[in-house]
Amino acid sequence: MNLKDGSKFPRVVIIGGGFGGLQVAKKLGDKPVEVLMVDKHNYHTFQPLLYQVATGSLEADSIAFSLRKNFSDQKNFRYRNAEVTKINPEKNTIDTTIGELPYDYLVIATGSTTNFFGNKDIEHFAMPMKSIPEALNLRSLILQNIEEAVLLNTKEDREPYLNFVLVGAGPTGVELAGALAELRNNILTCDYPELEKEHMSVYLVDFLPRVLGAMSQEASKGATDFLTKMGVDVLTGVKVESYDGSVIKFEGGRSIRTKNVIWSAGVMGVVPAGINKNIIERGNRIRTDSVCRVAGFSNVFAIGDVAAMITDETPKGHPGVAQVAIQMGNHTAKTIIQLINNEPTEPFKYFDKGSLATIGRNKAVADLGKLKFQGFFAWMIWMFVHLISLLGFRNKIVVFINWVGSYLTYNGGARLIIRRYVTEAIPEKTAYLPKTDG
Amino acid sequence: MNLKDGSKFPRVVIIGGGFGGLQVAKKLGDKPVEVLMVDKHNYHTFQPLLYQVATGSLEADSIAFSLRKNFSDQKNFRYRNAEVTKINPEKNTIDTTIGELPYDYLVIATGSTTNFFGNKDIEHFAMPMKSIPEALNLRSLILQNIEEAVLLNTKEDREPYLNFVLVGAGPTGVELAGALAELRNNILTCDYPELEKEHMSVYLVDFLPRVLGAMSQEASKGATDFLTKMGVDVLTGVKVESYDGSVIKFEGGRSIRTKNVIWSAGVMGVVPAGINKNIIERGNRIRTDSVCRVAGFSNVFAIGDVAAMITDETPKGHPGVAQVAIQMGNHTAKTIIQLINNEPTEPFKYFDKGSLATIGRNKAVADLGKLKFQGFFAWMIWMFVHLISLLGFRNKIVVFINWVGSYLTYNGGARLIIRRYVTEAIPEKTAYLPKTDG
Repeated sequence: MNLKDGSKFPRVVIIGGGFGGLQVAKKLGDKPVEVLMVDKHNYHTFQPLLYQVATGSLEADSIAFSLRKNFSDQKNFRYRNAEVTKINPEKNTIDTTIGELPYDYLVIATGSTTNFFGNKDIEHFAMPMKSIPEALNLRSLILQNIEEAVLLNTKEDREPYLNFVLVGAGPTGVELAGALAELRNNILTCDYPELEKEHMSVYLVDFLPRVLGAMSQEASKGATDFLTKMGVDVLTGVKVESYDGSVIKFEGGRSIRTKNVIWSAGVMGVVPAGINKNIIERGNRIRTDSVCRVAGFSNVFAIGDVAAMITDETPKGHPGVAQVAIQMGNHTAKTIIQLINNEPTEPFKYFDKGSLATIGRNKAVADLGKLKFQGFFAWMIWMFVHLISLLGFRNKIVVFINWVGSYLTYNGGARLIIRRYVTEAIPEKTAYLPKTDG
Repeated sequence: MNLKDGSKFPRVVIIGGGFGGLQVAKKLGDKPVEVLMVDKHNYHTFQPLLYQVATGSLEADSIAFSLRKNFSDQKNFRYRNAEVTKINPEKNTIDTTIGELPYDYLVIATGSTTNFFGNKDIEHFAMPMKSIPEALNLRSLILQNIEEAVLLNTKEDREPYLNFVLVGAGPTGVELAGALAELRNNILTCDYPELEKEHMSVYLVDFLPRVLGAMSQEASKGATDFLTKMGVDVLTGVKVESYDGSVIKFEGGRSIRTKNVIWSAGVMGVVPAGINKNIIERGNRIRTDSVCRVAGFSNVFAIGDVAAMITDETPKGHPGVAQVAIQMGNHTAKTIIQLINNEPTEPFKYFDKGSLATIGRNKAVADLGKLKFQGFFAWMIWMFVHLISLLGFRNKIVVFINWVGSYLTYNGGARLIIRRYVTEAIPEKTAYLPKTDG
C-alpha cells in the first residue's frame, strides 16, 4: 500500500462497498487508521431500487455511486478495484486479483447473492436480480420478450413471452410484481399497440402462506390486496418444482409456460475462501460474536448479509436488510477503534426502525414499530426514505425527477435494450420467430 | 404487418431510427401511409453527446430515447426490433432477422460507422465511439486503465495506461480531448489520490493541418488555443502508421506508448446488402438524385450519412452531420407524399445552420453563417442547442441537471465500470498487474 503520507497507522481492509462496508469506511474517516476498500465494482449499489432498473423506470447510474468519488474528501481512504480470492487470517493478508494485501483489521462485508438452493436448472434458466449487471440483463430480457410477443399473432403463442413469474414474495418480489403490473396496465398497449393488456400476466409465487413473510399480517394483507387489484396472480403456499426455460412446474401439478422467471426466493452469504467451514451457519453466513468478530479471530469482522451473529438474544442472527448492515458497520468501526485503544468493547444491539415495501403508485405497506399502515401515506414515507438514503445529491435529484415524471405521465422510464441478453433459455433461433403476416 | 386498423395505405419502411429516420417518421405522422421503422436498437441515440457518456459525465440512458415511446401517440407508426440483412428492390421487400417485410416506399437511413480505412490492426486495437455500447466500452476501458495505473509506481510504468491518443480532430475528437483534459485537470487527483496530474496525457492527432477541418480558420485556431491551454497535445499534419495495442506509431518515426487509442478519424456509410456496387460513392455512401432517391429506383430513398447526393451543386454530396439527415428526412417525407399524390417533386436544398463544437467549461467555437466566435457565448449556444435537440423532456432535464452539477462541482458524472471491457489489447493477465508494494 502506497499511501502518500507514508503513515504507519493500523490498516483496516474492508471487502465490499455495500451498505455495511461503506458505513465502516465512513465512520473511520477521522480516525488514526488507514482504510482500504476492495470491491470488484467501483461503485456502491443501492439495492432497494434495483427492481426499478430491471423494469426500465430508473437508469442504472442513478442507483450507483462511485466509491472513489464518495470518499474523495476522506484522506485516509484508498480503494482498489479487485476481487478477493482468499483470506489468510493466519498471516493477516488477503489474496486478490491484484496481489496479496496485508491488513491489521479485516472487515468482511461481501453481502449476499441469489440462493437457488442447489437447483442447477433453475440457476441456469431463471434470472437473478442482486446486482446492476443482473438488473440490466433482466431489463433486456423483459423488453426482448415483449418484442418477440409483438411478432406473434395468437394469445397462445404470445403467452410464454408475456407470462412473468416472480418466485419469492419478499420485498423484491412484491415490488417487482407491482412494477410489472404497472407496466402492463399503463404502458404496454401505449408503447406496443400490437398487444393487449390481457396478453400479459404477472404471477407472484411463494412457498410461504403469505407475501412479505417477514412483515406483519397487516402488511401482507395490504400488499396482497393491492397486488390483486392491480391484476397480479398471487400464488402463496406454492413450491417450485422445476424450470426448463419454457415451463415452470409447481408441486401439485400446476405449471405455467414462461420465458420470464425471476428468482428472488432466497439469498446466501458470499463467503471468501479461507473461512473455516465449521463456522458457516445457515444461509452460508459467517458466525460472529456479539461485536461482529468472526468466531476464532480477534481482528476479523463480518457484517451485514454475510454475517450470522448467533447469540442468546439472536439465535438465528439478524435479518438480511440494509439497516442491519449499516448498524453493524457503525458498530464495527467503533469496535475497531476501541480495540486499537485497548478499551472495552460493547455488544451490538440492532435497532429495528421498521419495514417498508412499495407495490406501486400511491400504494405501499409500512410496519413502523407498533404503527402498521398501508396506502398513500406509507408510499410517501417509502419514497422519502429511499430518496434520502441514496448516495449523492445528483442521484437524489435524478431519481426524484424520474419519479415525478412517471407519476405525472403514467409512462416513465427509458426501457432501452442497450445490450441484448442472450441465454440458452432464449436461443437466437427462436428469439427471432418469423412474422407470419406481411 | 399486422396494423390493427387493417389499413391499406401505402407502406413506408424506414431502416434506422437516427436523426434522419426519425424525421421521416415524424413528418409522415398525419399522412395516409403506414410507417414501419426497423432498427436493431430500440432507441434513438443522440450521437453528439456520446463523448460525454464515454468520459462518464452523462449516463447512457440520458442520450437515448425509446423509439416506441417517442411514437406512442402516432397511430400510423409501428416499430420492429430487427436487423436488416438485405434489401430486394426488384420485389420491394427487405430481408430482416425477423423475416421478409414488403414496402411500397423504402427509406435507407442506416447512418455511418467508424472507418478504419482498411487497417485491421487499428480496427482491432483502437476504440470506436459511434454507438452507446461502444461509448460504454470506452468508458469502462478508460476507467479500468486509470485503475491499472494506480497499481503501478513509476511514471514510466503508468504512462501507457494514462496516455490517451485521440485520432481524428473533428468535433468528436476535439470534444473528447476537452473532456479528458478536464478529467485530468479537475478529477484525477481528487478521485485517484495515488496519481498526479502530470502522469496523464491527452494527445489529439490528425493528418490534416488543423483541427476542426470542416469549420472556419477562426474556429480551428480558437479550439487549438483552448485545447493547448487545457494541456492537450495537439498534433496536426501527423499520420498514423500503426497501432499494436501498446504503441501507436506515426509517419516520420514518432511513437507513443498507450493502451488508449480512440479512433474518430473517419466514417463510412452502412450500406445494406442488395445495393449495386456501382452506385456506391466515396465514404461508402449510396448515390442519390436530387430528391434523395437511390440511383435507378423510383421508390427507394437514402438519407443522412449513408447518402451521397451527387449533383452539379454538390459534387461531393453533403457533410455527415445531423442537420443534413434531419433536413433530408423532412424532404423525403414530403417527396413520398408528392409521389403518392402524383405531384411534382422538388430538389433538396441544404440550409447550413452553422457548426458548433465545445472544448470544455465556458469554451466552445461557433461558425454561424458569417458570425464566427469563440468562448463563453459560443458555449452557452452549444449547450442550448444540444439541450433542445435531445428527445424527451426527462432527458433534457436530467442532462441539464448533470451539466449544472458538473459546472458547480468541477466533478460531475458517475464514472462507473458497470461491465468490464476485455480486449486482446488488454489481456486479463496484464490487466491485473501485481502491486509491487504493500
